[in-house]
Amino acid sequence: MTTAKYDVLGIGNAIFDILVRTDDAFLTRHGMAKGSMALIDEAQAAAIYSAMGPATEVSGGSAANTITGVAAFGARAAYVGKVKDDQIGRMYSHDIRAANVTFTTPVATDGPATGCSYILVTPDGERTMNTYLGAAQNLRPADIDPEQIAAASITYLEGYLWDPADAKNAFVKASKIAHDAGRTVALTLSDAFCVHRYRDEFLDLMRGATVDLVFANEAELLSLYQSTDVDAALAQLRKDAAFAVVTRSEKGCVVVTKDKITAVPAFPIEKVVDTTGAGDLFAAGFLFGLVRGASHEQAGRLGALAAAEIIQHIGARPQVSLKELAQKHGLPV
Amino acid sequence: MTTAKYDVLGIGNAIFDILVRTDDAFLTRHGMAKGSMALIDEAQAAAIYSAMGPATEVSGGSAANTITGVAAFGARAAYVGKVKDDQIGRMYSHDIRAANVTFTTPVATDGPATGCSYILVTPDGERTMNTYLGAAQNLRPADIDPEQIAAASITYLEGYLWDPADAKNAFVKASKIAHDAGRTVALTLSDAFCVHRYRDEFLDLMRGATVDLVFANEAELLSLYQSTDVDAALAQLRKDAAFAVVTRSEKGCVVVTKDKITAVPAFPIEKVVDTTGAGDLFAAGFLFGLVRGASHEQAGRLGALAAAEIIQHIGARPQVSLKELAQKHGLPV
Repeated sequence: MTTAKYDVLGIGNAIFDILVRTDDAFLTRHGMAKGSMALIDEAQAAAIYSAMGPATEVSGGSAANTITGVAAFGARAAYVGKVKDDQIGRMYSHDIRAANVTFTTPVATDGPATGCSYILVTPDGERTMNTYLGAAQNLRPADIDPEQIAAASITYLEGYLWDPADAKNAFVKASKIAHDAGRTVALTLSDAFCVHRYRDEFLDLMRGATVDLVFANEAELLSLYQSTDVDAALAQLRKDAAFAVVTRSEKGCVVVTKDKITAVPAFPIEKVVDTTGAGDLFAAGFLFGLVRGASHEQAGRLGALAAAEIIQHIGARPQVSLKELAQKHGLPV
Repeated sequence: MTTAKYDVLGIGNAIFDILVRTDDAFLTRHGMAKGSMALIDEAQAAAIYSAMGPATEVSGGSAANTITGVAAFGARAAYVGKVKDDQIGRMYSHDIRAANVTFTTPVATDGPATGCSYILVTPDGERTMNTYLGAAQNLRPADIDPEQIAAASITYLEGYLWDPADAKNAFVKASKIAHDAGRTVALTLSDAFCVHRYRDEFLDLMRGATVDLVFANEAELLSLYQSTDVDAALAQLRKDAAFAVVTRSEKGCVVVTKDKITAVPAFPIEKVVDTTGAGDLFAAGFLFGLVRGASHEQAGRLGALAAAEIIQHIGARPQVSLKELAQKHGLPV
């Protein structure tokens, strides 16, 4: 195994976030399941947008958020995702490169516009996402550069990749390349409804060791095992995955392997402004800890710290140096 | 004089803000005058953008910010400004209409892209703007709808309109229509460098009563009279303008007419996050007070309140109902 050029490489749906504060009645009126990610088509996007208030825009996309977080800790990061060569795609490409992430996926020159998520943030800080995949639908196995994947210590994939038709093939291709190069493959389950759509396939990825490390929140874990009992679901997860992390919002996280369980508390914060990216940034901190050889406890603390930073402002991209933030809190960087 | 359909109508350069946090060294390195607005061409925009970090986008434009503020107080508001029919222009149009502002200016279907301002926000919260006017350059007298202008109690114009070649003609046309209809015309001097570019013309607008009410901050006032003495400049302003308001950042504002001077304190705030839009939102509150028949003292308080809201978050568009905020503070709405 050669020395890695990248600490973490992420593959995901490249999505530009259009965020707006609203009230719970808006969600009810539009039949949205609070806290979830729903896929919408162009007509639905237009309808939701025209009903929404004035917005703030920040680049997003689950794995992309994670990867910019990894870079904000000072690690070497790369991203693979598909945007179109349009104004939004150019802002997206700017933002990820300006975050010190290597981003070389060819942009689409025709087909649908760069993907957007219309994100409603309620007064409790919870976010409800409506995603028009757009150009992200066209991520294909050909976009996976074998040399780049083989050069990354960890390849991190989002469950959302199961939604566009070709992306799952790109996912599987990347996993094989990574494993052939002796690298680690991580997966986030992304969303409880996404898990519901692809439950059996996600379980196959875990049981067949296509992925080595799994991130999930409680809702995704319960959806995976169609359970209402977190402890029972955790016990099943330990059978299916060699290594997993379950995030539990303000209750912190649980890191599980075959031989131990490590519970790590969340960072106390004053006010949740916008939960968009909480799970993504937790994964960033945890993955960063792993590549630095930190303990599960320390990796969990790094994840909790990054999640705490992201939920205290609008948007899912870090607004400070997570490296300096970690140093302030005496965490390893 | 018929009953007004709009309380305030604003005319300005429609500009989409691309905001990024940076340090003072960035400004020095790029020769930027802190706190100012510099005009840039497409090549300069590309160079500055590629040097900037990851950004947050929020619709902007000085008069447009003011007008959305007026609407956020619950008043009837309209805006005239030029965007292109591109992705950014569509977000811009969405944002202003979603803020309950009437916006019917025809969009450009060819020519330059929707204008953007690359805004650097330093740790002290000060903003430094680099504006590519783009489609805003093409605002023309033909875009001024006489019926709409005549139907507004106050027409509010930004000094920045002097930068695009044709917009000043639109400005003068709007002023004449407003006055013929017995309405009030207000002007903000916009920026100390802008005042430097058009000093004599701005003085002519005031002395010739093309404008009835003038907004300026201290730097703009001093630039107008090429002075370093605020009191002396204020005395000159009282000769040239029948009615003016000078904002003084944390020292509040001074409202001057021929027969009285009213000083109004600022609202104390915890932390300045981003001063972008401070003057714009002050004007929003003050204008709203005027149309509601408030005293100068109360109008100044409403302006100070709106300015305080805007500088505590990124971007120059209000994130709360200013009407509710004013009610909480016992101010007239």
